[in-house]
Amino acid sequence: MAYMLEKLDEEKVFKDPVHRYIHVRDKLIWDLIGTKEFQRLRRVRQLGTSYLTFHGAEHSRFNHSLGVYEIVRRIVEVFKDRPHWREEDRLLCLCAALLHDIGHGPFSHSFEKVFHLDHEEWSRRIILGNTEINAILKQASPTLPQRVSDVIEKTDENKLIVSLISSQIDADRMDYLQRDAFYTGVSYGHFDMERILRVMRPTEDQAVIKHSGMHAVEDYIMSRYQMYWQVYFHPVTRSAEVILTKVLHRAKELFEQGYAFQYPPVHFESLFKEQISLDEYLQLDEAIVMYYFHMWQHEKDGILNDLCDRFMNRRLYKYVEFNLELQMKKWLELSTLFQTIGLAPEYYLVVDSSSDLPYDFYRPGEEEERLPIHLLMPGGELQELSRQSDIVESISGKKRTDHKLYFPKDRLEDFSTFETEKKRILDILYGKG
Amino acid sequence: MAYMLEKLDEEKVFKDPVHRYIHVRDKLIWDLIGTKEFQRLRRVRQLGTSYLTFHGAEHSRFNHSLGVYEIVRRIVEVFKDRPHWREEDRLLCLCAALLHDIGHGPFSHSFEKVFHLDHEEWSRRIILGNTEINAILKQASPTLPQRVSDVIEKTDENKLIVSLISSQIDADRMDYLQRDAFYTGVSYGHFDMERILRVMRPTEDQAVIKHSGMHAVEDYIMSRYQMYWQVYFHPVTRSAEVILTKVLHRAKELFEQGYAFQYPPVHFESLFKEQISLDEYLQLDEAIVMYYFHMWQHEKDGILNDLCDRFMNRRLYKYVEFNLELQMKKWLELSTLFQTIGLAPEYYLVVDSSSDLPYDFYRPGEEEERLPIHLLMPGGELQELSRQSDIVESISGKKRTDHKLYFPKDRLEDFSTFETEKKRILDILYGKG
Amino acid sequence: MAYMLEKLDEEKVFKDPVHRYIHVRDKLIWDLIGTKEFQRLRRVRQLGTSYLTFHGAEHSRFNHSLGVYEIVRRIVEVFKDRPHWREEDRLLCLCAALLHDIGHGPFSHSFEKVFHLDHEEWSRRIILGNTEINAILKQASPTLPQRVSDVIEKTDENKLIVSLISSQIDADRMDYLQRDAFYTGVSYGHFDMERILRVMRPTEDQAVIKHSGMHAVEDYIMSRYQMYWQVYFHPVTRSAEVILTKVLHRAKELFEQGYAFQYPPVHFESLFKEQISLDEYLQLDEAIVMYYFHMWQHEKDGILNDLCDRFMNRRLYKYVEFNLELQMKKWLELSTLFQTIGLAPEYYLVVDSSSDLPYDFYRPGEEEERLPIHLLMPGGELQELSRQSDIVESISGKKRTDHKLYFPKDRLEDFSTFETEKKRILDILYGKG
Amino acid sequence: MAYMLEKLDEEKVFKDPVHRYIHVRDKLIWDLIGTKEFQRLRRVRQLGTSYLTFHGAEHSRFNHSLGVYEIVRRIVEVFKDRPHWREEDRLLCLCAALLHDIGHGPFSHSFEKVFHLDHEEWSRRIILGNTEINAILKQASPTLPQRVSDVIEKTDENKLIVSLISSQIDADRMDYLQRDAFYTGVSYGHFDMERILRVMRPTEDQAVIKHSGMHAVEDYIMSRYQMYWQVYFHPVTRSAEVILTKVLHRAKELFEQGYAFQYPPVHFESLFKEQISLDEYLQLDEAIVMYYFHMWQHEKDGILNDLCDRFMNRRLYKYVEFNLELQMKKWLELSTLFQTIGLAPEYYLVVDSSSDLPYDFYRPGEEEERLPIHLLMPGGELQELSRQSDIVESISGKKRTDHKLYFPKDRLEDFSTFETEKKRILDILYGKG
Repeated sequence: MAYMLEKLDEEKVFKDPVHRYIHVRDKLIWDLIGTKEFQRLRRVRQLGTSYLTFHGAEHSRFNHSLGVYEIVRRIVEVFKDRPHWREEDRLLCLCAALLHDIGHGPFSHSFEKVFHLDHEEWSRRIILGNTEINAILKQASPTLPQRVSDVIEKTDENKLIVSLISSQIDADRMDYLQRDAFYTGVSYGHFDMERILRVMRPTEDQAVIKHSGMHAVEDYIMSRYQMYWQVYFHPVTRSAEVILTKVLHRAKELFEQGYAFQYPPVHFESLFKEQISLDEYLQLDEAIVMYYFHMWQHEKDGILNDLCDRFMNRRLYKYVEFNLELQMKKWLELSTLFQTIGLAPEYYLVVDSSSDLPYDFYRPGEEEERLPIHLLMPGGELQELSRQSDIVESISGKKRTDHKLYFPKDRLEDFSTFETEKKRILDILYGKG
Repeated sequence: MAYMLEKLDEEKVFKDPVHRYIHVRDKLIWDLIGTKEFQRLRRVRQLGTSYLTFHGAEHSRFNHSLGVYEIVRRIVEVFKDRPHWREEDRLLCLCAALLHDIGHGPFSHSFEKVFHLDHEEWSRRIILGNTEINAILKQASPTLPQRVSDVIEKTDENKLIVSLISSQIDADRMDYLQRDAFYTGVSYGHFDMERILRVMRPTEDQAVIKHSGMHAVEDYIMSRYQMYWQVYFHPVTRSAEVILTKVLHRAKELFEQGYAFQYPPVHFESLFKEQISLDEYLQLDEAIVMYYFHMWQHEKDGILNDLCDRFMNRRLYKYVEFNLELQMKKWLELSTLFQTIGLAPEYYLVVDSSSDLPYDFYRPGEEEERLPIHLLMPGGELQELSRQSDIVESISGKKRTDHKLYFPKDRLEDFSTFETEKKRILDILYGKG
Repeated sequence: MAYMLEKLDEEKVFKDPVHRYIHVRDKLIWDLIGTKEFQRLRRVRQLGTSYLTFHGAEHSRFNHSLGVYEIVRRIVEVFKDRPHWREEDRLLCLCAALLHDIGHGPFSHSFEKVFHLDHEEWSRRIILGNTEINAILKQASPTLPQRVSDVIEKTDENKLIVSLISSQIDADRMDYLQRDAFYTGVSYGHFDMERILRVMRPTEDQAVIKHSGMHAVEDYIMSRYQMYWQVYFHPVTRSAEVILTKVLHRAKELFEQGYAFQYPPVHFESLFKEQISLDEYLQLDEAIVMYYFHMWQHEKDGILNDLCDRFMNRRLYKYVEFNLELQMKKWLELSTLFQTIGLAPEYYLVVDSSSDLPYDFYRPGEEEERLPIHLLMPGGELQELSRQSDIVESISGKKRTDHKLYFPKDRLEDFSTFETEKKRILDILYGKG
Repeated sequence: MAYMLEKLDEEKVFKDPVHRYIHVRDKLIWDLIGTKEFQRLRRVRQLGTSYLTFHGAEHSRFNHSLGVYEIVRRIVEVFKDRPHWREEDRLLCLCAALLHDIGHGPFSHSFEKVFHLDHEEWSRRIILGNTEINAILKQASPTLPQRVSDVIEKTDENKLIVSLISSQIDADRMDYLQRDAFYTGVSYGHFDMERILRVMRPTEDQAVIKHSGMHAVEDYIMSRYQMYWQVYFHPVTRSAEVILTKVLHRAKELFEQGYAFQYPPVHFESLFKEQISLDEYLQLDEAIVMYYFHMWQHEKDGILNDLCDRFMNRRLYKYVEFNLELQMKKWLELSTLFQTIGLAPEYYLVVDSSSDLPYDFYRPGEEEERLPIHLLMPGGELQELSRQSDIVESISGKKRTDHKLYFPKDRLEDFSTFETEKKRILDILYGKG
């Protein structure tokens, strides 16, 4: 237990471009940052393929994880000595904040989809498994690994702590909105976090916001909305992701077909078989993935080498708006035409859909129920945010979905072969069809 | 020649967190950005190992190259219609700005030192060799590749243009100071570039600064000074670089000894032999390097795997100040002691020196003569900056050098063996010797 | 006409904390800034009494007027050479931008209300009357004063130009939102103006926004919404304004009663009589007003000296929410009680109402019809903003109104007299009534 | 004594554009801010006439005083529980910080010079005299007014506290450099205050800076240097100040001559006689001064009305460099010529000198000895800053002085009379003489 309370001789600080400084006083936190599992987050980008749209967005999850830790550290300082807050939960909170993304692998959005991974499950395995992180947490307290894992999995009995890490206004979101806005250079993503932190209050079940801070929260919700559509769902980013996903699909398919790789997918084999071990998972990072994609540009398989070349050298697919329901006939015709001209439609004609729910107060029975944001009114009672804010009310529960059809336009504009078919394809895509 | 003048249908912009927007109107520039040689710069970090000190500094040379282009684009707009400026040099300037760093390989500071590479020579080879970049430049004008290369090599007859890319106040420095300050989060590195650009004037030999902008230039020089010592020469960054350099040394040594690599250094062989081809050079990037370092953590050679583990997991050397001249006796004793305890001193006891000359007006006969900054006085004559500025005068020509001794303190504090020797080593290093 | 085209020998710049630099190349603009009518705007605060809430907001209308000019200057640069834009309208636009607020007097919101003034009418009188501004405009072109006045009055036939100065997304609003956010220090008020300017396009009737800039416009609308409720309608600012208005009322009442002022309201007489001349109007500024308020702290009249002391020394009224319709009975009882305890209710029990319509597409028949914002779609047709933006649609036409009741709580808490009545008053106000 | 410790029920915050928020928890501080003497600082500009050069610089001393308070509040938080710091001095520090400029009158630089006032003496008189401030301080502790006054006068025995308010790196300077940079919009004036505060340490005699923060201090010193020459000594600002000073001189002269003022200088009489009382002093503010200047534009005296018109309508003097020692002959000739053409040289031919010493370590025997900045070295000893910093060493003790000659060029270019003399004057001034 002594280790748990051990302080560094002198506070350490990290210079952070978003929060200015990240302060570490606890030896436990310092030691966790030094583990190889945590250092690995330096090799996983926070925004996956977004750097191909916003060249500034090359920052890693290491960056973001420190940021979430720092925000929780500040919240906990505000909570100190207030009712409902137990100071003995402080380190649990800080550990969970720091480690909440520890399970993320390379380009996790695509990898999770293709290989049926779940980064939250991997977080648990890393925290509870045979790792440096587990050893350090256990040294602090035998029950700490399980508690940290429970908070990250949102199953911990202490709902207040869970809400700091995972809710509609948690430290995770507050960091990534600001950080991603900073690195992309977009002017959205700014809101008055300092004010929000000042007016956050602990209750038994969750952190709430004093009524006087409502406008700062409105601003945060609008930032979130803008960042989703301007950055996270940017159609060019999605194009790169479509290609990345298709590389993974193709490599898996070739592997299953027994194709003789010139550069065998050693690090991918257990992924393809969906029986990856903890050690194997921890080997994965974006440098490894890029190495293979780099090499596979020289594979004989024409689809694999083309897709890898596209990803490495940013030769992305173009896109048009597409309404899958209304345009099924077109889709079928396009598929057939793609087959004819020799572009496998499963790789070269891809519908991608994005959807976002900017704020919700309550969706009973849905897969992922979302804890609404509550305001602490002057009289002491709680009110759900959208009942007080016209702006938030107006967008509550309004899911917005966007479908796009992606394809390699360069291949369609090369008229050396199949001129008629290609013209027909372009006509369908660009509206004369 | 028509291609040279071709404009895009609509201006393209890149969102840039430092300059807000980067504007491209020329098809030539747009096409150069799209080449695979230029896209490769996304996989080479601007600040090498600095991200291990400043976690925000994960930005690539792609970022910086666009920034230098944008600054030159703005300068050229100011120069338009002024004496000494020829509008037909505009695209030459823009190309040279965009491509000035194209020859950089992964972690170039260390690689150049160990393998005797020179990124400026590689720039020339990439621009003049069989590359997509060369083809595009040639399409614009048969002589353009040579001119662009000459400007980057500072041998072009048009000294004005050369000074925009390489001088003591060039677009390169103006971008990197601001950009590196932005990403590291330090508060130095800011100066009023907008003002400097507004008061820049073309002369026959160089770009000069109107006298009224002197204070902005002073501020720029001070920013440069601070960035060198606060960021570029940060002792922790240098520790990572020492280790990186030693990995390369060790791998080369093992290769030359015929060591049987479990993960053979395929991409390094021609580097080790110092006979690397253009194609091989272009394969290199930091993902490739990280892949090998990752793998080599599992090599049998105890030095190689230790050094790779240190680099990947940030287990860096510690350092003390060291004056090689005065402390030669200590150094010899330390070397012997390191041998005794089994830490090869050529890998584990390393002196690193940094030195910087913040501003110089003229150093005849020196290796790299530096063009001084000139002010354009109200009467029309030119005056060298340090003759007008007290602040600059006070630091002109003052070289500052710093030596540090790096070593793996963790290995010295593990007293399981050689307790006496280790204690003696620590005494010498920490001042009781 | 030569004067109209005259350029300064060298561009002049003003350092501006919001737009960095304000650029002036036209002699006409430079001369207008130098007139005494324009310099007078330095003595009229942009935000009236807001400095008593946000201490940073001490900036003048001079500041803001230069800012609006600069924004229009940038728009006009984007418009250059585009269809529907006539370069000969450039100076007209710039003059109208610079002078659009020239008619504002001290604390204009309150003065206009009490003395039935209209700053737009005064703008016209200043531009068309015997002033330095008129002389300079006339020197440029005999018809210029009338055109500038027409644009400011929104009656000019060129609706495109009018829309740059007065519409739901004009240079006026874009400047004041950013400027007021800057000086108050609030984190709202930021939006990507650079992007909006880049995507603005002239049409015959108005400036429109390319569809690709829709999100920047959404962000602007949200900024506007937040600034209204967080800054412009801040209840403390309104308290100061209530007091200011009551000082003016009291002084006028005393004047009409023939009260013997110790410090006679020389500068106010023609205002009281509502027959103020142009010269008299131009004498008014906030220094003059403050002088009288300062002096009147020493007048014998107990209401006037109390109100002036409150304004000068920030001893403001407190407030409670008040619904005039539902609470008429309470209001009557309060009025009577105030009378009883000797606080004239017409000065000490004041309802203030604020209301705002964040965006509207069309309100036929209303007093002030508002030109909707139109998006220029990829196909070339125009679409009203709220038909494309869910967020804007959700707040379109939704007027929000807020009523508060202001009173001097300090006087009610002084229980030396009328203890029973005061307790009753406090009970009514604070909810036990 | 209870009042001294009284906390507000809830922390109050002021939104501040420079420090984001200013936090007040002590009732004593809150009450001091509410006094009429402190509110009066809203009517005194921080930068005097600078707003005529930098239109953004309209901020008041109220602004700055809150800022200094906030910085000291943060320092005191860092000092808490450290050796040499006594928590019972906390409120004394905060009061001295808040009130350190309370003695400033309108345009104090000029007023002090002309009327031989000293704002530090007035601070003492306000704090110790019959004022609201005195009453509040006394209520906290009978000795508090004297202690606060002693700290501001630098005579308090506790040198550590004095150094926080008045030294070469005190809260006063740290606030005004940043604040004035913010409002003027210049890019100098920024330094990493957060870092400096983090590394400040109390010693018995003064606050010192940990060695690791040296570069942040260097940056602060450079900011100071730049702000002096770019902002505080800007020649246009000095022109306005020259005119302002001359207005005061003229009014005094006229008063002494028994001139019959149309607008008698009621508020100035005791100033002219140099026997102003505390009450009279507290009546003065910039609104009052502007009122008189406004009125005096209509006085019959040609010098007074001209000077007032120049000040109100920014018709400033031009300037040339002038070396009084070398150019005495010219000066005499100019004086005679000015007499001849009817421009009284004592009002229309004015030499103004500015000088600055950016940093000094020790100047024994000088009028105002300056406490050097000390670094706390790793070993615990103190070292004077310039012994560690090359940059600071290079500028230490180097006083820079600048003389300019100011005159109304407009009057010299009006050739309707005295053409020969005016030409001769212009020749002398502009270098053909």
